[in-house]
Amino acid sequence: MQNSGPKVTPWEVRGEVDYEELIREFGVEPLNEELINRIERHAGYLHVLLRRNVFFAHREFGEWMDSYERGVETVLYTGRGPSGYTHLGHLVPWIFTKYLQDAFKADLYFQVTDDEKFLINPGMSVEEVKRYTDDNLLDIIAVGFDPKRTKIFTNLSYTKELYNIAVRVAKHVTFSTARATFGFTESSNIGIIFFPAMQAAPCFLPQTLKGTDAHVLIPCAIDQEPYWRITRDVAPKLGYRKPAGIYSKFIPGLGAGGKMSASMPETCIFLSDSPEEAKKKIRNAFTGGQPTVREQREKGGDPDVCVVYWYLYYLFDEDDKSVAETYEACRRGNRICGECKEQLAEKVAAFLVEHQRRREGARSILDEFLLRD
Amino acid sequence: MQNSGPKVTPWEVRGEVDYEELIREFGVEPLNEELINRIERHAGYLHVLLRRNVFFAHREFGEWMDSYERGVETVLYTGRGPSGYTHLGHLVPWIFTKYLQDAFKADLYFQVTDDEKFLINPGMSVEEVKRYTDDNLLDIIAVGFDPKRTKIFTNLSYTKELYNIAVRVAKHVTFSTARATFGFTESSNIGIIFFPAMQAAPCFLPQTLKGTDAHVLIPCAIDQEPYWRITRDVAPKLGYRKPAGIYSKFIPGLGAGGKMSASMPETCIFLSDSPEEAKKKIRNAFTGGQPTVREQREKGGDPDVCVVYWYLYYLFDEDDKSVAETYEACRRGNRICGECKEQLAEKVAAFLVEHQRRREGARSILDEFLLRD
Repeated sequence: MQNSGPKVTPWEVRGEVDYEELIREFGVEPLNEELINRIERHAGYLHVLLRRNVFFAHREFGEWMDSYERGVETVLYTGRGPSGYTHLGHLVPWIFTKYLQDAFKADLYFQVTDDEKFLINPGMSVEEVKRYTDDNLLDIIAVGFDPKRTKIFTNLSYTKELYNIAVRVAKHVTFSTARATFGFTESSNIGIIFFPAMQAAPCFLPQTLKGTDAHVLIPCAIDQEPYWRITRDVAPKLGYRKPAGIYSKFIPGLGAGGKMSASMPETCIFLSDSPEEAKKKIRNAFTGGQPTVREQREKGGDPDVCVVYWYLYYLFDEDDKSVAETYEACRRGNRICGECKEQLAEKVAAFLVEHQRRREGARSILDEFLLRD
Repeated sequence: MQNSGPKVTPWEVRGEVDYEELIREFGVEPLNEELINRIERHAGYLHVLLRRNVFFAHREFGEWMDSYERGVETVLYTGRGPSGYTHLGHLVPWIFTKYLQDAFKADLYFQVTDDEKFLINPGMSVEEVKRYTDDNLLDIIAVGFDPKRTKIFTNLSYTKELYNIAVRVAKHVTFSTARATFGFTESSNIGIIFFPAMQAAPCFLPQTLKGTDAHVLIPCAIDQEPYWRITRDVAPKLGYRKPAGIYSKFIPGLGAGGKMSASMPETCIFLSDSPEEAKKKIRNAFTGGQPTVREQREKGGDPDVCVVYWYLYYLFDEDDKSVAETYEACRRGNRICGECKEQLAEKVAAFLVEHQRRREGARSILDEFLLRD
């Protein structure tokens, strides 16, 4: 792997991300008006994550909706790498996945890649990953997925079915291809080299379990796309449909630049943060404001680089008129950072209270969701 | 991998094998008199496979017996790659393993590497491997292992426990090491690259299942040794003892040169062959005899290159005096090939009748042996 310049692989997102460039580099399609209108027809409304373009790219999402309209079994698959506690950024694709589940009445297969996180993090024990897993599962369920339509599983607990599919995938993936796709080196361990096959396996799990045709759609952040490129190459060789994908941007942390990352806890709102902790982090967030209130009033701020505005725009202020007013007021110096921070802090605090309430409720229904060997 | 000269890896045995050279190359020890006497003390007798030096090398076998004598749990681990029907050559390490099980009252873990055989053979389907597996299991049980002390499992059926151990092993094995050991190339698939970790896993399975210390001994053909070199490197990093090993020579086929291989059925005695089929193959075997009986009487034969003599010596004539007489009589021209062939044919036919009887009995006790998820 190169060590300079922007870089996006499943294990690394570095530098400023140019999404137009990523669309070209990954060979995916931008989500266009026609597709967005089509989702809206099925869902009955347009999710803010679509209206505001957080989900911005796809692969054969139209074909997946074709399958739905023709009565082919349409299925969702997404996942979580349990390398730490869940933060707000992780939740974005899951919230959107629930929206798709409701809209398309789709079964959802949710993979927790405990094996991957153990294999990729030198200092992390299996026991540590399992602790995070147990914790993360509650956050996943708290999103509100339909228990009748949702199967959650971890690779180290629901192994047999996955490994049986993974060896079939792996047989068609050479080291050369895996290295070119994931940047493996001589010192990569043989577990992480195999892992792409374990991540591909759930694309073929519904067909295996039910013995029927199925069309899988994967909602996820764009950095996961390399996995699906390999999976799509292998699918026809195993007699399955290629999975479709719908991809989100990264969620920034509260500091300057970079996606929200648990490795920088002070810039990261964990779902287990108390409302007060979250408010404090937001009050310390990086903004596009001027150094002083006086300068802000005189020169105006820059919402385009402001993390607080980003969160309001993409997630916490669904009202188009309100968010447009915030933007203009900031630019004209009519609004100071403290006001935006308080607005966001209140929203996030309320969100966390509700999430944590649901999370407590998740403990008693966990077993309804889990697949285990 | 080089394509000329003798070569021994787990997937390839080519050319004339120099066992002295292999001992040096693999860095193992020859089985010496002291060790052999020590086994005899524990077993009450010396197995023909030891007396005749088919098992010829080891790694820390003395230390394993130390553990036994000190009351440390001593365990056996061997395996089978189910890429075809079982032949006589496969049985040699298993017969010896049963001898060790009886002598040391040891638990035996028997791995069937269905994943490996699927991954390494381009044209082989999982279904085909599973057919061979179901068949091979009966041959394994027919050897007579103690059902109370023996657990048999296949990687595609007893996956969770094995994969959970394998990822711990894999984290300590780089691609670079695996390539140097197994000769992987750019076009090796990512499943077979991971497989050494699955083969290593049973070395740590008894400890995992029972939560105790254990000292594992692996009886197997010498070509499997590279796996244990990697496993031994990893063992202390996981807090386990290094497995010991005791290694056999290869069993020749009935043709000229090469180990007995299912890919040359005419030179290979399958355990499912009828006594008549087996006799016919033996009558067509390569020998060290002269082209005509007359020349044989005049010049004598060469038992050292004779496959029929090999089978009598190593397996089917346990009587030291008788086998020495056969050797001398052949060299002096006092015995012709037909006599040796008939002697061997009768022995093998009787062996097959007995094996096939036990094999039928194995169906009803299969479940007592199997570990499954």
